[in-house]
Amino acid sequence: MSKPLKYAVFGSGSWATAIVKMLSENQQEIGWYMRSVYIKEYILKEQHNPSYLSSVEFHTEQLNISNDINEIAAYADVLIFAVPSAFMYSELEKLTYDIKDKIIVSAVKGIIPETGKLVGEHFVDIYKVPFENIAVIAGPCHAEEVALERLSYLTISCADAGKAQTIADALSSDYIKTKISDDIIGTEYAVMLKNIYAIAAGIAHGLGYGDNFQSVLMSNAIREMKRFIKKMHKMKRNINNSAYLGDLLVTGYSTFSRNRMFGNMIGKGYTVKSAQMEMSMIAEGYYATKSAHLLNKKNKKKTRLPIINAVYQVLYEEKDAKKTFKKLTEKLD
Amino acid sequence: MSKPLKYAVFGSGSWATAIVKMLSENQQEIGWYMRSVYIKEYILKEQHNPSYLSSVEFHTEQLNISNDINEIAAYADVLIFAVPSAFMYSELEKLTYDIKDKIIVSAVKGIIPETGKLVGEHFVDIYKVPFENIAVIAGPCHAEEVALERLSYLTISCADAGKAQTIADALSSDYIKTKISDDIIGTEYAVMLKNIYAIAAGIAHGLGYGDNFQSVLMSNAIREMKRFIKKMHKMKRNINNSAYLGDLLVTGYSTFSRNRMFGNMIGKGYTVKSAQMEMSMIAEGYYATKSAHLLNKKNKKKTRLPIINAVYQVLYEEKDAKKTFKKLTEKLD
Repeated sequence: MSKPLKYAVFGSGSWATAIVKMLSENQQEIGWYMRSVYIKEYILKEQHNPSYLSSVEFHTEQLNISNDINEIAAYADVLIFAVPSAFMYSELEKLTYDIKDKIIVSAVKGIIPETGKLVGEHFVDIYKVPFENIAVIAGPCHAEEVALERLSYLTISCADAGKAQTIADALSSDYIKTKISDDIIGTEYAVMLKNIYAIAAGIAHGLGYGDNFQSVLMSNAIREMKRFIKKMHKMKRNINNSAYLGDLLVTGYSTFSRNRMFGNMIGKGYTVKSAQMEMSMIAEGYYATKSAHLLNKKNKKKTRLPIINAVYQVLYEEKDAKKTFKKLTEKLD
Repeated sequence: MSKPLKYAVFGSGSWATAIVKMLSENQQEIGWYMRSVYIKEYILKEQHNPSYLSSVEFHTEQLNISNDINEIAAYADVLIFAVPSAFMYSELEKLTYDIKDKIIVSAVKGIIPETGKLVGEHFVDIYKVPFENIAVIAGPCHAEEVALERLSYLTISCADAGKAQTIADALSSDYIKTKISDDIIGTEYAVMLKNIYAIAAGIAHGLGYGDNFQSVLMSNAIREMKRFIKKMHKMKRNINNSAYLGDLLVTGYSTFSRNRMFGNMIGKGYTVKSAQMEMSMIAEGYYATKSAHLLNKKNKKKTRLPIINAVYQVLYEEKDAKKTFKKLTEKLD
């Protein structure tokens, strides 16, 4: 029997904390990299994260926490990144340890703004990690419900089914069910796109559209997502699986989603800048909107993306949200 | 130019009232049948329905209200039924006027419990209305949002595209967008099935499952609905269109849906009988569950319907909701 793999999580936000909790049900020890010395010391002393999912108690003897990204990269075989996409680039700049033989799992909900690349793509291009060593975790999964041990389903995508299953097993528990998929590219795009649709749902809500429109918006969004992903990476996939439709719904219907909240402020009349300042952090979907727009622009034959285009116009071209969404309603059905 | 068609609505609940409002934007006069003399007199005197959507003011000179179903059946060319499915059979027993040349529009959200038939089917079989004269109105559409003139989308299905368009035009306005479809059978099944899934969502919520599970449930529900409808009536349809997925979502996510509320009570431990007594009216999905179960039983090759089966077991076989849904979670992905 081969030696069991060692897992490490990078990040200290709610999703990173939730993943450490999932792993702690199965793993003897978990590596955990976080930037903040304060949070590290707090967790070791108080057995919980001071800022996120603070109801989750950890057995600190199970945790190998470090503020040194290279130490944790060297420690583990499977590196799970759950850093907000806006910080990925700067965090990874600290990495000097060669990670090309590691299995890299992206739990980043978005794309890397500095490069416009999918997270997996970034690791393949810059760190020479083989494509079959890249995996993605997709929801539908609010971290808050993991803390409460409410039943949640995850999809682990990896080109190598064996590796996908190994990671899936490491995350599974009474309250986490997992399935595997080989559609790593499609899953990454879905994770990125859902945040744009959550912004759209927020804008619509802020403008006063109701539940009837919200459901029409989601019905159009999943069709638009299907067209987009098909154009980027054609393969047989059921867009109504949980990793695509389920994840879209949990984000698009959640009033706690940062993306939806951001959209809501725009719909209520905030400028993009003031909404961002108010929220103290930039919603992932803000960057995703630009990337999706640019990706589609590159295509010779453009895909029809009325929702993404409307969000792009509002966020990047200073178009009036009310007028833009009025026009959008004509394009939906 | 041919004479414009006359429209009449049957029923006085919230959906019937909303449809009268939609028609009143376009039609000179609307026939309106309701059972209650009291409600008729109230509307004529106070210009609004005392019990439903009471914020909607009618111009009573536009309304031809009667308590005589035959009078209104004789008056109009297009008969729109928006009676709760549980009362359809007894209401129609009063009908002596021959309606075989009328256009019949079903806005009934369910099947006729006494016969287990789709509403359209009932009119074809019993009243000899030609199939191409049968139409169905599907949402996603809460009546309450029509009252507020919030943008809503309707799909009018009819085998005869010209008739579908005529009805669609009669219902369209600034806040109602319509599209037409030729999938009348699929639309009727979708309208029926969504109520079962809304009960399932309610049961899950009552049992303490959260938003993560709800989105997995909806993602599985739309796939199950697709399988069911395909087995009943195979044709090319996009199950993610608003009339199917959109309508499922608006019902499955609405905390006001009677079906979801009923399920929620069951999940919280009420017996079926006590939940029904508490609600004073039987949720459409209760009957739909039995019909869907029986329809599938008739098939030689059964369709996999884990959600419908679970709801059936809880509602009709006195199975424990908690255990049944625990088993259901193993079948979803």
